[in-house]
This record gives sequence, structure tokens and C-alpha cells, in this order.
Amino acid sequence: MKKLSPQNVIPGFHAVMDTLCYNPSQIKEIYLIKENRSARIEKIIKIAYLKNIPVHFLDSSDMLHSFRNLSHQGVLALLHEFQYKSLDNVIADVFRKQGRGLLIAVDHITDEGNLGSIMRTAGFFSADGLIIPKDRSARISARVLKSASGVHNRLSVVRVVNLARCLTVLSKNGFWVIGTGIHGRSVYEFDWDMDIVLVLGNEQKGISPSIKRICHDIVGIPSPNRIDSLNVAVAEGIILSEIYRQMSHLSS
Amino acid sequence: MKKLSPQNVIPGFHAVMDTLCYNPSQIKEIYLIKENRSARIEKIIKIAYLKNIPVHFLDSSDMLHSFRNLSHQGVLALLHEFQYKSLDNVIADVFRKQGRGLLIAVDHITDEGNLGSIMRTAGFFSADGLIIPKDRSARISARVLKSASGVHNRLSVVRVVNLARCLTVLSKNGFWVIGTGIHGRSVYEFDWDMDIVLVLGNEQKGISPSIKRICHDIVGIPSPNRIDSLNVAVAEGIILSEIYRQMSHLSS
Repeated sequence: MKKLSPQNVIPGFHAVMDTLCYNPSQIKEIYLIKENRSARIEKIIKIAYLKNIPVHFLDSSDMLHSFRNLSHQGVLALLHEFQYKSLDNVIADVFRKQGRGLLIAVDHITDEGNLGSIMRTAGFFSADGLIIPKDRSARISARVLKSASGVHNRLSVVRVVNLARCLTVLSKNGFWVIGTGIHGRSVYEFDWDMDIVLVLGNEQKGISPSIKRICHDIVGIPSPNRIDSLNVAVAEGIILSEIYRQMSHLSS
Repeated sequence: MKKLSPQNVIPGFHAVMDTLCYNPSQIKEIYLIKENRSARIEKIIKIAYLKNIPVHFLDSSDMLHSFRNLSHQGVLALLHEFQYKSLDNVIADVFRKQGRGLLIAVDHITDEGNLGSIMRTAGFFSADGLIIPKDRSARISARVLKSASGVHNRLSVVRVVNLARCLTVLSKNGFWVIGTGIHGRSVYEFDWDMDIVLVLGNEQKGISPSIKRICHDIVGIPSPNRIDSLNVAVAEGIILSEIYRQMSHLSS
């Protein structure tokens, strides 16, 4: 069989099923293990058939050999190239919708598991888009998509050459650029009722000084234990949860 | 050099520094790369010297060879065996302290990165302990400790043979056993002003039916996007953050 690049492979039942349901046009073909015809695999085959997506059956040894670094549970989708959105389109989408806009920007997140988890959480809380820099950042790879657990199908991702310039453009368009850092204002006391770009920093170094200068404000999560760090994806989850809680409270 | 078992190695600057500061008696010896004598490495050497912990210097190639599966940034600590706490001691600690008790129990979390991140978040929010089952669960390994980023030093970990029996004991001691699941009551509307054991389920299957039966209640995080899953460590972070927010609000 032909060699597949890991950049455009989605591994795992949930991620493949989610893509089949929400973004089937992204899938070029599906690979399954011959020996496994469980009920949930039959479901994939049926949907793929209805959407005219070719399904290939491999011996489990071939599957193992071709994708040995992926935890794929015998289910893989080969994608057309990942479709990034343009910043202009994402801004236009925010202006069109009701309610506040919420974008996430990541300042050089290098761990693929973290980037996937950040995408998953952004999708869960209905963020309007994720902005990643082109350089010194994890790219949308198979591992990222696995961690994102299919949620990338419902999230616009923008890739920018210059994050600082992008944040300045968003600022001029009325967005509040809010950075995260340990000595920031408490997330629980912050008034989130604005169009927001939430900037998450690198796992080790936090937000770079040039980006910090553009931020209108810095927020932090207070620790009763005075521990100064959380996993970046967990921190994002806590902040988005607090934004969601405040906004639901306002609208009820 | 002697062969080190990955179970009792802490890799990475932050994790080693945190252990040196908060739990130095846990460290048997420290390994550093000969060539790297940066300011922060000098700091480790100085503290280790003050605490009578031997420091070994290896060639970077030896270090690479001996710990090739670890991302250690040239800094490693070899630990005495990980010290679990007994359930009785943890319960006694909760009864002694002021304020509400908060324990986290994990129902067969198999991913080491997730377990480490769960520990890190539990430590951040000052949980009184983490309960893990002996079987079908990730153990406290080097990767777990790396993800926990040193926070394990300030968190009691209990390992139990039978999680259901342990939760029943806690229930008899006045703890509310609260499970997590997608169709649970909203975390934002739940009244958290009780001694709590929060039960987190397996990454794929959630909480097992036998554990669910013991839970007094099930809580969930509502998604505006109707997505039904979050990374388990992110979900824990959101719930602990909401507990912390409610408790701070009550005490202020």
C-alpha cells in the first residue's frame, strides 16, 4: 500500500466518527482492520458508504506496520490537506453571530497533546476560532487531531506568520486581547462580557514579552496552595468555563 | 553506571527543583549533564549540597543512552520508592483541618500524561488526597511525575485494591461521593459545600457501573456546543475551579 503521511491521518474511532458526521468532505478514504467487524465498525462502514467515501480493509499486521506510532484502535481516516481559515473570515463570522466573540490564540505551544487538548476544549466551549503561529509551534498533526478527539471539525483554525500583528488587527477590530499569567487578575473577578482573544503562553516560558505588551490585561487562576503552574490546556478549560458561567448567568 | 528503573526517576528541571524544595528526603541522588552548568543547574547543585544529596555528572551521551525515553532536559533525580499514604491517615488529616475536605478518586485512568495532569491540578487546588486503584490504572511512573510537575510532593496519594470498598468507607465517614458524567447535574448549579470525593472516570468508558451505584450524585459540565467529551484532566480542573470559586465566595 502507499505510504501515508502522518500529517493528514486521523486515528481512532471517535475522531473518525466525528469527522464522518461533521466534516465528511475532509475525508479522502478510510482504513479498517479486516478482522474487526464490531457493531461500531459496521456503523462507520455504513456512513462512509452513504457519503461515498472509499473504505479499505487491511490485515492487522499491515495496519500495525504502516501506522506503528499511532494509537488508532484499528480505525484510520486519510484526510485531504487540513483546511485553515483566514483571519478575515473568522472575524466576519464573529461579527455576524449573536453574543460575544471568543477566540483563542496560542503563543508557541510546542506539545502536540497540549495543542490537541486546547482545540478540544475550545470546541467544547464553542470558541469562534483558534489562532496558531506558523513557526515555533506544534502543527495540526495526527497526534493533535487524536487529542482533539474530532472537535477540530467544529472549530476554525487560523495559522498566522506574525502573532503580534494578528493580535493588533483583532484589537483594532474591537477585541480585547487578554493574556494569561500567574500574577494576573483573578479569572473569577474579571468581567468577561466583551469580545475576547484569550492568549495562552508556551508551556515553559508563558507569554513572550512582545505579545504581553499588546495584551489589554493579564488574568490568572489563583491557587489556594500557592502553586504557580497548571497544565496550559487545563488552565484554558478553567478560564473558558468561567467565561461560559458568567455569560450564561448574564443571559438568564 | 547502574541501570535505573523509570518508576523512581524524576526527570526535568522543574520537577527536580520542586522535589528538592518540598520533599528532599524523597531524593536518593541527582544526575546532571557534565557540559551544562547554567545558573539554574548551579542552583540545583547548591541546594543538593545543602541537603546532603549526592550529585552525579554524566556525559550527555551517557545520559541520553540511559534515559532515552524521558524528556529530562539534562536533569534527573533518582527517588526512594514512591511513598503512598494510607486511607485512614488521609481521612484523619481531613478531619483535623479547617474547612471542607476534597479527595479525588480516579476510576482506572490509564494514560500516564492524564494521571500526572490530574495530580498537578489536584495539588494546585489544594485537594487533600488522590485515590488510585491498584489494577487497571496508570501507576506513579516517571512520566506521571513529569506531568505532575513536582506537585506530587504536596499531595497525598492512596493506592487501594478495591475502589468501590474505599468509596463506601469514605461515604460512611461523611464524604459525599460525586461522580462525573455527561448527563450529570450542572457543576455550576451544584452545591459543593460538603466533604467531597470527586470520582473521575476512565478516558474512554467513564465511570464503571459498579462505582456509579455508590455515587450520591453525578455532575457534568454543560457544553454550549453540545460536545459530549472533554479531556479528563481538563474536566477535573473545571470542577475543582468551580468548587474553589464557590468556597471562596462563601468564606468572603
